[in-house]
Amino acid sequence: MISWRDVYKVVIAMVPLYVALGLGFGSVRWWKIFTADQCNAINRLVTLFILPFLTFEFTLHTDPFAMNYRFLLADAVSKIVVVIILAIWAKYSSKGSYSWSITMFSLSTLTNTLVVGVPLVSAMYGKWAQDLVVQLSVVQAIAWFTLLLLAFELKKAGVGLSSVSAQSNNGGSQVMLVESSTVNGVEEKSEIVSRSFRSLVKIAWFKLALNPNVYAGILGITWAFIANRWRFEMPSIIEGSVLIMSRAGTGMAMFSMGLFMALQEKIIACGPLLTVFGMVLKLVAGPAAAAIGAMALGLRGDVLRLAIIQAALPQSITSFIFAKEYEVHADVLSTAVIFGTLASLPVLIAYYIFLGFIR
Amino acid sequence: MISWRDVYKVVIAMVPLYVALGLGFGSVRWWKIFTADQCNAINRLVTLFILPFLTFEFTLHTDPFAMNYRFLLADAVSKIVVVIILAIWAKYSSKGSYSWSITMFSLSTLTNTLVVGVPLVSAMYGKWAQDLVVQLSVVQAIAWFTLLLLAFELKKAGVGLSSVSAQSNNGGSQVMLVESSTVNGVEEKSEIVSRSFRSLVKIAWFKLALNPNVYAGILGITWAFIANRWRFEMPSIIEGSVLIMSRAGTGMAMFSMGLFMALQEKIIACGPLLTVFGMVLKLVAGPAAAAIGAMALGLRGDVLRLAIIQAALPQSITSFIFAKEYEVHADVLSTAVIFGTLASLPVLIAYYIFLGFIR
Repeated sequence: MISWRDVYKVVIAMVPLYVALGLGFGSVRWWKIFTADQCNAINRLVTLFILPFLTFEFTLHTDPFAMNYRFLLADAVSKIVVVIILAIWAKYSSKGSYSWSITMFSLSTLTNTLVVGVPLVSAMYGKWAQDLVVQLSVVQAIAWFTLLLLAFELKKAGVGLSSVSAQSNNGGSQVMLVESSTVNGVEEKSEIVSRSFRSLVKIAWFKLALNPNVYAGILGITWAFIANRWRFEMPSIIEGSVLIMSRAGTGMAMFSMGLFMALQEKIIACGPLLTVFGMVLKLVAGPAAAAIGAMALGLRGDVLRLAIIQAALPQSITSFIFAKEYEVHADVLSTAVIFGTLASLPVLIAYYIFLGFIR
Repeated sequence: MISWRDVYKVVIAMVPLYVALGLGFGSVRWWKIFTADQCNAINRLVTLFILPFLTFEFTLHTDPFAMNYRFLLADAVSKIVVVIILAIWAKYSSKGSYSWSITMFSLSTLTNTLVVGVPLVSAMYGKWAQDLVVQLSVVQAIAWFTLLLLAFELKKAGVGLSSVSAQSNNGGSQVMLVESSTVNGVEEKSEIVSRSFRSLVKIAWFKLALNPNVYAGILGITWAFIANRWRFEMPSIIEGSVLIMSRAGTGMAMFSMGLFMALQEKIIACGPLLTVFGMVLKLVAGPAAAAIGAMALGLRGDVLRLAIIQAALPQSITSFIFAKEYEVHADVLSTAVIFGTLASLPVLIAYYIFLGFIR
């Protein structure tokens, strides 16, 4: 059972995030302090300097030898379940499309772990929950974002032909492309696929290596491995230098999301129907998949609850950035980030209370 | 006696500040991430949103009923000593000038209390020293910046006639002005002075009320008075909302100073001679005046040491902003901010060690 006191603690942890977000929003919409170009500069400041330090600071303090690997595996299982369902849908359904599969995967599995997740789950379940979410964020940054980028690169290279044929009514040239590859036969196609696949993996890794946040995650976890293996601590002069930037992380990230929201013409960029669809994926399908994965691996009690709740966290901002870069339903993901962040407060609290009733 | 361990602790507290500063500098000079306009946006973000929260957060937690009023009085005495010396110089010396008096006052007394001072003195002497510096910063923000603005407004209104006559060789129109007011006689002049003085005080207060940082200081100290009088605490939901922004304060302020440095053509904008002059005022005259004030009020031991050291803190950024606004030796103050911030690390540590030897 969750008491009102517990719920209030969660509210206390969340409201400051929305205050920072509101200041960012207001500074553009109400007080006209920043132009669009200046907002981009602030967003770049956050993306390039502040968030990587936040990621580094958090991953630094994980202990890879004391990770809850069953929890991480449950998360992996839930994501693989989603991938399989979407792959079947894309292949066999008449409405199935490769690019929609990518978007639906993003919507239902990739969450804002560090900025919103950490303060939230530590208010709900305490320090251990924060540690688990940080571990999830490391895996998300290193493994799942790589796969997401790879999927985007595959699509860009035109290998995801199902998507091309699904969209072929849009233009003549795309129809030509599909026809020519059909004429050339299946064997040559599979040869092209295997040849290009390796170079695409390289591109995906290269892109990730350019993303300072992923970079910071890998650097942090590497340090954590070494430091925990040979039991030494980071010199406090370096720790302090990381902290001075990372302490700005949560506030500046939410402020910059406020700027981002204020720059959009509409909060709901993709129309109400797609918004509802996105929210259902995010807030229902995601947690359901997480519950399946968690129960498959026999998680119980608060760890099970955490596994479900973390899946309902707001949309990962990185997933939107990638969608924008590859021009794949960026409006849907922008809406999921904006609307999802606003809607998540009541929904997460509802989940928290509801899961508290289940033993 | 100060041990190497003590010195190292101070270095640990200071280096992160310079890392943040270096990132800001490098992002413009080396990595070309931000344009000048974008830097201004980030500086505005810091000035309008982050620093006021930092000021508010610190002043909030002072206890006005447990302030060290003797320490604050000693500080006031030292500043008044400086004012008197400068006033005598401006009036009786042939080289004396009103605008240089203002600048010299800024250089020798106004310091960067919260961003650099707080982490530094708390590493040197502990929490009590931090509290005293925060108290000083409140007085500086409310009393001394008001007087500084008033002095600038007086100059602008042309009441500081000694400065006009000192600079009269620059242009014919100014000579005319001085001559005409001399012709009109002393009585009418004093009438104008008294009439305009009140409106200038109003302007100074109005300008300060527009400065969100001063605003935050007044709001914070008001809250502190009320909360400590009737013994209640700030609701943690508000405290958290303030903290989420204020935690970004130190890092972002130093980052933004790095941006500011990178935008200057030269680090030493006002020539080497004026730079040395400024540094002597800042690092020798300021602490000397502080020592006089402190000894006049019988401060002893670590409180005396703190009174001297805090006077050698880097130049207050606000004093530069005002100087720029009124176009009074902005280059000298910009150099004092930049060069002073860089030079202060070794000098402050030297003071710290030196004062440790004196009983």
